[in-house]
Amino acid sequence: MAITLGELAERLGVTLQGGDPACEITAVSTLQHAGAGDLSFLANRGYRRYLSGTRAAAVILAAEHAAECPVAALVSANPYATYARAAALIAPRAPARQGVHPSATLGEGCQVDATAWVGPHCIIESGAIIHAGVQLAGGCFIGAGSRIGAHGRLSANVVVCHGVSIGERVNIYPGAVIGSEGFGLAREGGKWLNVPQLGSVRIGNDVDIGANTTVDRGALEDTVLEDGVRLDNQIQVAHNVHIGAHTAIAGCVGISGSARIGRHCMIGGGAGIVGHLEITDNVIITGMTMVTKSITKPGIYSSGVPAQDNDSWNRNYARFRQLDRLAKKVHALERRLAALDGEQRGRD
Amino acid sequence: MAITLGELAERLGVTLQGGDPACEITAVSTLQHAGAGDLSFLANRGYRRYLSGTRAAAVILAAEHAAECPVAALVSANPYATYARAAALIAPRAPARQGVHPSATLGEGCQVDATAWVGPHCIIESGAIIHAGVQLAGGCFIGAGSRIGAHGRLSANVVVCHGVSIGERVNIYPGAVIGSEGFGLAREGGKWLNVPQLGSVRIGNDVDIGANTTVDRGALEDTVLEDGVRLDNQIQVAHNVHIGAHTAIAGCVGISGSARIGRHCMIGGGAGIVGHLEITDNVIITGMTMVTKSITKPGIYSSGVPAQDNDSWNRNYARFRQLDRLAKKVHALERRLAALDGEQRGRD
Amino acid sequence: MAITLGELAERLGVTLQGGDPACEITAVSTLQHAGAGDLSFLANRGYRRYLSGTRAAAVILAAEHAAECPVAALVSANPYATYARAAALIAPRAPARQGVHPSATLGEGCQVDATAWVGPHCIIESGAIIHAGVQLAGGCFIGAGSRIGAHGRLSANVVVCHGVSIGERVNIYPGAVIGSEGFGLAREGGKWLNVPQLGSVRIGNDVDIGANTTVDRGALEDTVLEDGVRLDNQIQVAHNVHIGAHTAIAGCVGISGSARIGRHCMIGGGAGIVGHLEITDNVIITGMTMVTKSITKPGIYSSGVPAQDNDSWNRNYARFRQLDRLAKKVHALERRLAALDGEQRGRD
Repeated sequence: MAITLGELAERLGVTLQGGDPACEITAVSTLQHAGAGDLSFLANRGYRRYLSGTRAAAVILAAEHAAECPVAALVSANPYATYARAAALIAPRAPARQGVHPSATLGEGCQVDATAWVGPHCIIESGAIIHAGVQLAGGCFIGAGSRIGAHGRLSANVVVCHGVSIGERVNIYPGAVIGSEGFGLAREGGKWLNVPQLGSVRIGNDVDIGANTTVDRGALEDTVLEDGVRLDNQIQVAHNVHIGAHTAIAGCVGISGSARIGRHCMIGGGAGIVGHLEITDNVIITGMTMVTKSITKPGIYSSGVPAQDNDSWNRNYARFRQLDRLAKKVHALERRLAALDGEQRGRD
Repeated sequence: MAITLGELAERLGVTLQGGDPACEITAVSTLQHAGAGDLSFLANRGYRRYLSGTRAAAVILAAEHAAECPVAALVSANPYATYARAAALIAPRAPARQGVHPSATLGEGCQVDATAWVGPHCIIESGAIIHAGVQLAGGCFIGAGSRIGAHGRLSANVVVCHGVSIGERVNIYPGAVIGSEGFGLAREGGKWLNVPQLGSVRIGNDVDIGANTTVDRGALEDTVLEDGVRLDNQIQVAHNVHIGAHTAIAGCVGISGSARIGRHCMIGGGAGIVGHLEITDNVIITGMTMVTKSITKPGIYSSGVPAQDNDSWNRNYARFRQLDRLAKKVHALERRLAALDGEQRGRD
Repeated sequence: MAITLGELAERLGVTLQGGDPACEITAVSTLQHAGAGDLSFLANRGYRRYLSGTRAAAVILAAEHAAECPVAALVSANPYATYARAAALIAPRAPARQGVHPSATLGEGCQVDATAWVGPHCIIESGAIIHAGVQLAGGCFIGAGSRIGAHGRLSANVVVCHGVSIGERVNIYPGAVIGSEGFGLAREGGKWLNVPQLGSVRIGNDVDIGANTTVDRGALEDTVLEDGVRLDNQIQVAHNVHIGAHTAIAGCVGISGSARIGRHCMIGGGAGIVGHLEITDNVIITGMTMVTKSITKPGIYSSGVPAQDNDSWNRNYARFRQLDRLAKKVHALERRLAALDGEQRGRD
């Protein structure tokens, strides 16, 4: 969509500096690759070196970089957020469709709003409710009695099991599974009995759930994702987990049953959270960290082990296997040295 | 389903203590949230503090806690297993359906038992056999010549590739993929050749396979899951893996090719098992552990690294990178101290 | 397919030694289980012990083992690659189908080559192009404007989002998702804004993508997989990642945004690659390693921590938590010992 720089500045609530307000913007691009008609942005200092040579029509940037900008500048206190809004204006999402594709199957008593779209081969089970503007791309399964809130977008082959409640403006990406059975097992005579999983999943508004991510239903009470949660791809959220509002979780994270994660947390890729613990608000967990105890103080927590060349690693790890012995040797040395010291002083 | 306490005690084979056998139970709930008509349970000591205040109609618990129970008690040697059975009686699964949905496609020569249900948009390829009572929720793909044993339940969008054999009463959750090609590669001139994966997958009875879990087919012989295995979500089982009966594996575990895991093992979330090794029966692997060698002795094995605050972690890890040097310094100190000690004794 | 040993040797370009060229081979099997009519191979030294007792009709092996071979030998410089080719001849893949299944849905302006197969319940969105010989098994979603190059094979329930370009002879296994939105978030006032993901995914020729693996589309430029890349199951490839030709990546690996991985690399299962870094060609990353910095030198890199028995692990890890203090103690000991040494020498 073409939009003038002047209108863009106004709609984004930022200051246009050094450019023609009538100049038309038709696309977004990186500082390196932008050309005429392109809007770019500088949010990450690592890309500052590309600013002076950019051929973009305009650049969104912070006030401190405006002086170095060779082209029109849109000056923002938060250039990345301003870019996100600008890109959504210039390159809008595919328009919403309406209706039910003839190949979709609708169960008894399900309700599909007239402004929603149910794509090919979708399966809407009995009693499910699809609210206004919802877009089901195709091949989605919506279980009995589930509810998809207004303006949700479910990509292809998403599965929402029975009785799940999903808020408004929720994006769910392909292959994600919401509300599958939790992994509840009772042991009896060396065999496993399945514990019926009778809770469900409740998802707030403005949540995103990545491709092939799984969110299990609760055992008795519900698994809960509060408003604004962001889940990347390939994440496992076990039964009865509770994730606080505006927490963002990167790919391949596993969260065990009944863990309670606070608001405004950030969890790095591949991290693992043990069950039945609590993480307070504003905690950052770095990549591949394992959280085994509750975290009661905001801050950054880590245990992801950075790579070394294999020879160094093997040498160091061999020592680690004997670390307790090494520590005991050090303590023995301390005692012997203290004794020796004492003897010597006695002699002096 | 409503059931009286008396009937419940009888069907569960447990003792009713201090309650009216005619009292009707209509639901299950937690100790904290249960009300009239609800059955609850005490299996985890952490919840004992809620027992005295519970308003449940009855509580399943161990004999040692019966005296503190303020309401009717169902006394069991294994309260969690008893609860699992009780919950299955009180809140039974959705009733089985029968027939083939008109939108399903059936290949040549496939057999679907009259008591099975093939849901919407399922694809049954040629020669596949669907046994009595099987429930295919919808969007499932059953490859040519595969066999789903009696009373299996496949949730939405499950894929079973060709030639796979699945036992009786197997639950497979949404998005799971059984029998995809193993990752078999031969290197030739810097490029990869795919090694045809000609084995299949054999799954025993009473197995559960979680959402988006993948179990690859064997290269020449089969990948095998014995009876009673439980796999959680997001697990990767590579070609020619063999998992012994009644082993339970938590989410996000990766098992490399030709690993052989014993019976009655428990593997924690995010663990990784290297290929071509053997783990004996009754082994417990804790979360995020990497198993690199065969384990021949039952017991608990670990290498998952618990989180620390980021500053401590960075300081400690910086030392770990030099751990071999540190160990050498300690040995040098030991030698110098021994020498010094000797000199001193010589002098005395 | 039956083939004589003589023809096999000729087509594989290897030497037949000690066997009847007219002998018919009808199947492939392991050294232990092969019988009459079976071809076997010896590629891994661990299996050499089975060679003397094999009842295979012929064995593919290296020259150094030919003398010990009790049956006909097909002598190859690269037995595993020769076996891969032989197995493909003897046990060919299911024959290609042609046409569009009546249950598939085709969007406006999409093109399906007459020699391609679009299986049941596939959804081809507007403007997508399906080239010659492509096989879509069933339940696949091909987004608007995407292109599947000639002779690609997409297993059941594969999702290719809009605008994705896939080269020739690409295999994609069930449940894989190509081109879902990247995890691009801008923070504003404690909430997350989604940054539109306007790039796409470009996949070269002869690439394999495993079951339930996810490859996200780029933010502004494309996510790229060069020719010959092999991805196993359950892998996450984030936005703007670039994977060089002939790199093979095992299951459960997570690659963060904008990481650039070289050619001919091998990445072990469960490894994690941090974003915005570069790994040069011919690098090997072992299992469960976390790469946090660019790697500029070919070689092997590790940080996966091997399991110990739980008691040893706990003792050693407790010391690790104090490793910085331990190292300081060692340095203090060194200083005190040096001082003591000096005093003593002064006294002598």
